[in-house]
Amino acid sequence: MADYTEVSDEELIDFVGAYDIGEVVSFKGIAEGVENSNYLLQTTVGTYILTLYEKRVRKSDLPYFLGFMEHLAAQGIDCPTPLHGNDGTTLRTLCGRPAAIITFLKGMWPRRIQPQHCAGLGTALAQLHMAGASFNMYRKNDLSIKDWRPLYDTCVARAHEIAESLPRIVSTEIEFLEANWPRGLPSGVCHADLFPDNVFFIGDKLSGMIDFYFACNDFFAYDLGICINAWCFERDGSFNVTKARLMLSNYRKVRDFSDHELQALPLLARGSAVRFLLTRLYDWLNHPEGALVKPKDPLEYLGILQFHQQVCNPSAYGLE
Amino acid sequence: MADYTEVSDEELIDFVGAYDIGEVVSFKGIAEGVENSNYLLQTTVGTYILTLYEKRVRKSDLPYFLGFMEHLAAQGIDCPTPLHGNDGTTLRTLCGRPAAIITFLKGMWPRRIQPQHCAGLGTALAQLHMAGASFNMYRKNDLSIKDWRPLYDTCVARAHEIAESLPRIVSTEIEFLEANWPRGLPSGVCHADLFPDNVFFIGDKLSGMIDFYFACNDFFAYDLGICINAWCFERDGSFNVTKARLMLSNYRKVRDFSDHELQALPLLARGSAVRFLLTRLYDWLNHPEGALVKPKDPLEYLGILQFHQQVCNPSAYGLE
Repeated sequence: MADYTEVSDEELIDFVGAYDIGEVVSFKGIAEGVENSNYLLQTTVGTYILTLYEKRVRKSDLPYFLGFMEHLAAQGIDCPTPLHGNDGTTLRTLCGRPAAIITFLKGMWPRRIQPQHCAGLGTALAQLHMAGASFNMYRKNDLSIKDWRPLYDTCVARAHEIAESLPRIVSTEIEFLEANWPRGLPSGVCHADLFPDNVFFIGDKLSGMIDFYFACNDFFAYDLGICINAWCFERDGSFNVTKARLMLSNYRKVRDFSDHELQALPLLARGSAVRFLLTRLYDWLNHPEGALVKPKDPLEYLGILQFHQQVCNPSAYGLE
Repeated sequence: MADYTEVSDEELIDFVGAYDIGEVVSFKGIAEGVENSNYLLQTTVGTYILTLYEKRVRKSDLPYFLGFMEHLAAQGIDCPTPLHGNDGTTLRTLCGRPAAIITFLKGMWPRRIQPQHCAGLGTALAQLHMAGASFNMYRKNDLSIKDWRPLYDTCVARAHEIAESLPRIVSTEIEFLEANWPRGLPSGVCHADLFPDNVFFIGDKLSGMIDFYFACNDFFAYDLGICINAWCFERDGSFNVTKARLMLSNYRKVRDFSDHELQALPLLARGSAVRFLLTRLYDWLNHPEGALVKPKDPLEYLGILQFHQQVCNPSAYGLE
């Protein structure tokens, strides 16, 4: 909510008038989601999410994001999908910002992750990767191996403020990853930000995935590394191998991975830890005084990185 | 959202299980409302608001607030009403905080106020005042004339940081109000915080009032003063007499006011301006670094106060 856009009633009614979804009956800002302004919109026809894309999202990437959501939904993946206005377009303008109305996805994200959630996540992630195979747009991951060094350079002078050892550890790690980053692994469209708050459940059953605004083309196993880091570490920093085993074993029932991918997993998980460590470090050092959003702790990801550094082979993740 | 409470799925499901409203299907934090944590809750039965009362609200006042909402709804006033759990109570505990589920009120608050909104507001406020006559609980207004001097004393040392002239103007004004505050005007239950974001409309039609957490027993005309200040000044600080005329003339169609009340209106509007000037001043000087909520500008209410100071009689508000 760093830049929450206030939408007037007149502007809203005009905007909604471009769709065939009845009359507005309620409109409330949602307190989750920090990148964009999200509103819950109820009309005489149904419930929707209206999103105004704030400056964090590049406008030229929006057709990829919205197109991917629409593609996934058409493939039977549970996720929100953008509505087409009466003129056929999904991406319009509201309050001077790119904006879209997307369908509403039922469910709640799990505040406390249970092993069963990780099982469902593994299945859903594999289904997403498979469904993306027929999506014909391309977007480079702009937060991958080549981008970490430049990002780190903008933080290096103050990284020691977070932890004395941080500059040495991160610099050595980036060097190692640059020298050892794999090539030629199976790749396609990745969600690339599938944290628990982007996955909804009703009871134990996964009801869908949201927030495709980091989606990009990259190694599928890198997306798995992101999920291992986001879902399988407890609050005290310990690794829960049961969660990882359930996630990976359910994933491979839908899309099995090659030995090459499996061997690369510890390294990709390290890379994913560096990616989130660096963006959190950047946000920590650069968040404006009095900002509405409290930055997340970069050190959580230092601990995760250090766990993967001591992993010798993928059996550490519960796989035979 | 200063102290937004994070509710886990298990806690939520337990909590909702104490009501006869089906299963939870969605649960989202609402970005509006700064005093409490408000969630939009959708179940298989309907849509509700779940509120966790944060420390800003005194727990001992909650039976009055919830009771008043319930009383008003029973009298046919459009407003949310608390649900009774299976054990008959409306006030329970969630995450260690007092909490209630209230009905969902359709409509949107007007971001840009039109004269027609003020007409509807006048009618609804008078209906609220009338309906409160049969409510048998009492709560003193703890932000009234006797409370302003002590509140100001906590700000006096730094008030000049906001405006050089502020200490002198406010101190003189409180002295004047203390000497001239009326007695014996018609009184009863007032909303006492009926700002535009607490009044919902569908199209031009008022659909209801929300947020009764400042409700208290005081002069009805003081509540009118609050509404004049909150609804009838334009963003540039100018007074819109058309809006005031519509508000007051529609109010008096439901509950006519006496000459005594009418004569007191400019003074009560000054008092209301001082009340919001002081609480905004306090919040401005005391908001923590990096707080999630940006404090409102106290000087807006200095301008409003100065307008009323030059009003000689109530015809300035568009009344004959």
